[in-house]
This record gives sequence, structure tokens and C-alpha cells, in this order.
Amino acid sequence: MQNKEVVLKVLKEEGKGTQKVLCVGLLCLDIVCVCQEYPIEDTDQRCLDQQWRRGGNAANTATVLKGLGSPVEYLGVIMGQQGRELCEDLRTGGVDIGNCVWEAETPTPTSCIILSASTGSRTIMHFNRGLKEVPLQHFSSVHLSPYSWIHFEGRNYPTVKEMIERVRDWRRQAKGGYPKISLEMEKTKPQETFQGLLSCVSLVDLLFVSSTVSQALGFSSKEQAVKHFKSLIHPTAVVICAWGKDGACGSAGEGSEVLSVPAVSPDKVIDTLGAGDTFNAATLFALARGFSLREVLEFACTVAGVKCGTYGVNEILNALSRQLQFTGL
Amino acid sequence: MQNKEVVLKVLKEEGKGTQKVLCVGLLCLDIVCVCQEYPIEDTDQRCLDQQWRRGGNAANTATVLKGLGSPVEYLGVIMGQQGRELCEDLRTGGVDIGNCVWEAETPTPTSCIILSASTGSRTIMHFNRGLKEVPLQHFSSVHLSPYSWIHFEGRNYPTVKEMIERVRDWRRQAKGGYPKISLEMEKTKPQETFQGLLSCVSLVDLLFVSSTVSQALGFSSKEQAVKHFKSLIHPTAVVICAWGKDGACGSAGEGSEVLSVPAVSPDKVIDTLGAGDTFNAATLFALARGFSLREVLEFACTVAGVKCGTYGVNEILNALSRQLQFTGL
Repeated sequence: MQNKEVVLKVLKEEGKGTQKVLCVGLLCLDIVCVCQEYPIEDTDQRCLDQQWRRGGNAANTATVLKGLGSPVEYLGVIMGQQGRELCEDLRTGGVDIGNCVWEAETPTPTSCIILSASTGSRTIMHFNRGLKEVPLQHFSSVHLSPYSWIHFEGRNYPTVKEMIERVRDWRRQAKGGYPKISLEMEKTKPQETFQGLLSCVSLVDLLFVSSTVSQALGFSSKEQAVKHFKSLIHPTAVVICAWGKDGACGSAGEGSEVLSVPAVSPDKVIDTLGAGDTFNAATLFALARGFSLREVLEFACTVAGVKCGTYGVNEILNALSRQLQFTGL
Repeated sequence: MQNKEVVLKVLKEEGKGTQKVLCVGLLCLDIVCVCQEYPIEDTDQRCLDQQWRRGGNAANTATVLKGLGSPVEYLGVIMGQQGRELCEDLRTGGVDIGNCVWEAETPTPTSCIILSASTGSRTIMHFNRGLKEVPLQHFSSVHLSPYSWIHFEGRNYPTVKEMIERVRDWRRQAKGGYPKISLEMEKTKPQETFQGLLSCVSLVDLLFVSSTVSQALGFSSKEQAVKHFKSLIHPTAVVICAWGKDGACGSAGEGSEVLSVPAVSPDKVIDTLGAGDTFNAATLFALARGFSLREVLEFACTVAGVKCGTYGVNEILNALSRQLQFTGL
């Protein structure tokens, strides 16, 4: 597998990026049905396996950050008894959950997911009833000095925009550049949220744009998408677009080149669920440690590729050392 | 809608068939994702609804029998805490569960099901880990005199065959024709079970054969399947084959005609999940009350059709009275 050197270099880097990353967004229950093939409509089949996992982009990204060795905190609304158990498991794994909001009466948002063992594809059917989001007032009560990065899963506009503004205010008052702010734009629905989040792109230090979002805007490649967003982001900011099997592309802002790197495929793709969240976590991890954009993209593509060759996101370091054949760091 | 008269006639029949029906088989958790369209592989969508329901063929059949007004008991292994809650709900609905076996340590078997709102199709992905079945010894300890019918979901061969033999022994000793025995052959997997169950068809009073099983045996119509099984069942027994949109077909044994009736479609098909179990329950209900095979098939097709126009199997009598426009009996 490619990029073994850069992976070891990033993982061994110490000293930098040892402050906490805060991931803000959803935690939900993923019920994953592992099927030999993607089912034909109106048939009845026995699954190879069924896994009840913690899901949600922000919770996944936090899990991978912790797995890579970063101090990390998850902030979100924990709904229902199942949400409570999933969050407790996150805490046991070393992710701080001290600022989470508890909503016992709201049912846990749940995704039913079909994982095709033959292609590794993941087909997601998400449902929530009365979903709650972190209120701005609650976010404003959180003391921001422990964080080097705050990563927002692009959701509940306009609240997310106000949260971003709140971090920027804090930075101005603290007269420092921290916490850095990242935003993930993954979905195009609901339309209002999508449009609203587009108005946030100039406010962040790192923007992740998905292929879904890029295609909805009319771009047919990651390079086109990055060139477009490069003109919208802050001159010193970074924009990154991952495009599945086509790898990832990024630009570190004004005047810098648009850099593309290929995807890194595992021997067998068995689970692409959470690959995007893993890519984002690995990007944050390497960027916070001061690596160049090329190194960051190569590292992130490798970690995301390794994730696609293993079930779930909990064992990322083990999977890395197994697939890249190095022993524990 | 067709067959309103026969439905009212069957539902109003009193006196006969007032003894209990025992349904032996699976109870499981169905997580039903209602999607606008059947999902395209590797996409991510928001469901219209998600329903956590009690499922399992025998549990569904028992629920519908109770809904139609029959005394009914469910017998199966109740696995896990969720199974316990689902079973308790069955009891609350008036289904006797007094002989069930409790297995707290085995996880509840779970089906994830995609319901397409545009076609009504149901795509089932079932999973269980360490599934337990009712042991023969346990079944043998059940006193059989309260039952007019015992309906077996064709599963765990050879135990089901031994249970059927045990009922036949009881009948011989009691020198009566009761309990009547019915067997449902729905699936072709596992292969050993399928082959084993084929050896049971001569032992029962009523055999349900699915289109899946019929097709696996090389038959391309319900009439072909019924003609074949007619030669295998007991001379006085009944064989019935339902074929979805193509209606149902049956024969009441040696010398009798092979009778076909058309399916009954609701105004809009919204949920075909459990339609087969509903058809079976309606058949048992009408047969136990002494109706002719034509009346039985027309009744069963109508009740199954009404079920396809309503979510779940819990409200069958309400759905019937709403869709056939009669007031409560």
C-alpha cells in the first residue's frame, strides 16, 4: 500500500497539535446490515451480519481522531436511551463528552444501512423524529480555550453560522489564531440548510466539500470544485474535496496550487461507511500537526482507504498497522 | 372492493371455530424503513418514516387471527429484552403467550425492511445470531385439548416434523379429528430444512405453499403448484398457494377441483409486509368456521389485499371496515 512513509511520519509527529479538537454535530444509531449483494427490490434475504454501531458524522470523526491519537471532544445532543449508551461508549473510548446536551424524551436518530459485501457500498436510510440540535446559547457557554480546532458538521443553519461567528469573536478577543475552524458540507438537503451553509464558507479555516455538493453545483470533478471554492474561502484558508475512488484534491488558499492525490484502495473494499468522516478526521489530525497539504491529503486518503478495508471506525490504528504492516507506535 | 359479502358472512359466522388456534414459529423485531422509492445502491436518503414493529410469520399470523376475532395463542422462543417487550405487547392485544420459552441471553432476531411508498414492495434483510427454536420436549409438555388448529411456520426441521407427529398421536389417542394441523412452506433456504419440510406435506390437514417454493420446484403458476401438491397431501387435506398479484389457488383434496381466485387490490398498495401471514391467518379463520374453499380463498385474498393498503397488521378489522365500508361488527 502507498504512502506508508507519510503515514508513519504524521503518526510519529509529537508536540504539535496536542490540544483538543472539538467535533460538533450528530451522534446516532447505525443499524448496519451486511448483505452478500445489494438486495433486489421485494426479495427476502438472510444477512451475513448485522451490527448496531455508533454513527453520525461528528461522532465518527471524533472516534477516528481519538483512534489516531488526538485529544478530542464530541459536542452534540444525545437523544434517547440508546443515544446515552452510545455516548457512554464514546467516553469509555477516551472521547470527552462533558459538554453534551441530554434529551431523554427524543428518540435516538437511527440510520438503517445496507453494506454490500461484494462491492463495499453503503446505502443509508436515515430517520429521525423531532431531532434536536445544540442551541447557540449552550454553545456560547462553552469555554473555548482548550481547543486547537473546532470542526462543524454542516447542519442546522443558521445556528452553525452563529456558532462559527462566536468562535471568531473569541479568537479576536484572545488575539490568537485559535481555535481553527473547519466546516463540512456534505449534503444538499434540506435546500435551505445547503444554501445557508454556502454563506459560511468564507468564515472558516478549512472547508470540506463533498462530491455530492460539488455535483449539485454543476462540477464534474474535484479539481473544478476546489477551483470554485478557492475563490470563495478566506485567502489563508484551505479547501478540500474528496471524490471517493477518484481520490482527493485541495488548495491551501490564494496563490497556491490545486493539488490532487489518488485514492488509496485496500486489498478488498468491505465497508465504505464512515470513510468520509475518517478522511476528515485524518485531515484535521495532519493539518493540526503542521504538515504540508500534499502530506495531509496523502495521509487522509491512506487512512480513509484503510478504513474501507475494515468494519467500522473504532479500530483505525490497528487497521493501519495491519494493512500497512508496521508495528504499534 | 370485491367480496364484501363473503367477508361479512365469514366475520359474522358465530359458534364454529371458537376454539383456540395455536401458531408456532418466530417472533422478531422488524425495523421498517419507509422510503419514497427503493434506494439506489450507495446513496444516502432520509426515510419518510421508520417503524419498529413486531414481526415473524407466526407472530403476525397470531396477531391477524386475534384481529379477526379468533381466540389465539402464540408459541415460540422469546429472545432478548426487545423480544420480551414485543411479546408482552402481543399479550396486551389478547394473544395468549402462556407457553412461550424465554431466552434472555440470545439477541432478538431482527429484520431490517425497506418499504417502498411508491410500489408497496417490502425488501427484507433478516439477521439472527444463535437463534433458538422451541424444543420438542417443551412442545410435548403442552396440553393440546384447547386447540382447534395448530399452525406451524415451516422452520427447524426435523423438530417441526416431530411436533406434527406428536399432534397426530394426540388426535389418535383422543379419537377425534382435532387439533387440525397446518404447515406453511414459504422459503427454500436452508436447503436441508426445505427438503425436510417436503417430507411433512402428507402429514397435515392444510398446506400453504408459497410462490417462491413453487418456483424453486419448477412451477410457473399457482395452478401447477397446487396440482403437484394435491398428489402429495392426504386425501382429505387442503393445499393452498398464494401468488401475490396473481391471486390464490387451492384444492380441497382428492377428486376436488383446483380452484383459482383473483387477488384483491387496495386503492393504493402501501405495505405488503406481512401480507402472506395475513392471508394464512384469514384462511385459517374461515376454514375453521367451515366455509367452502371458494369462500375461504375469496375471504383470504380480500383480507390480504386490505392489509396491503394499510401499515402493519395490528388494525386489520378497522382496515377492513374502512376499506370495505361497513361499520364495526
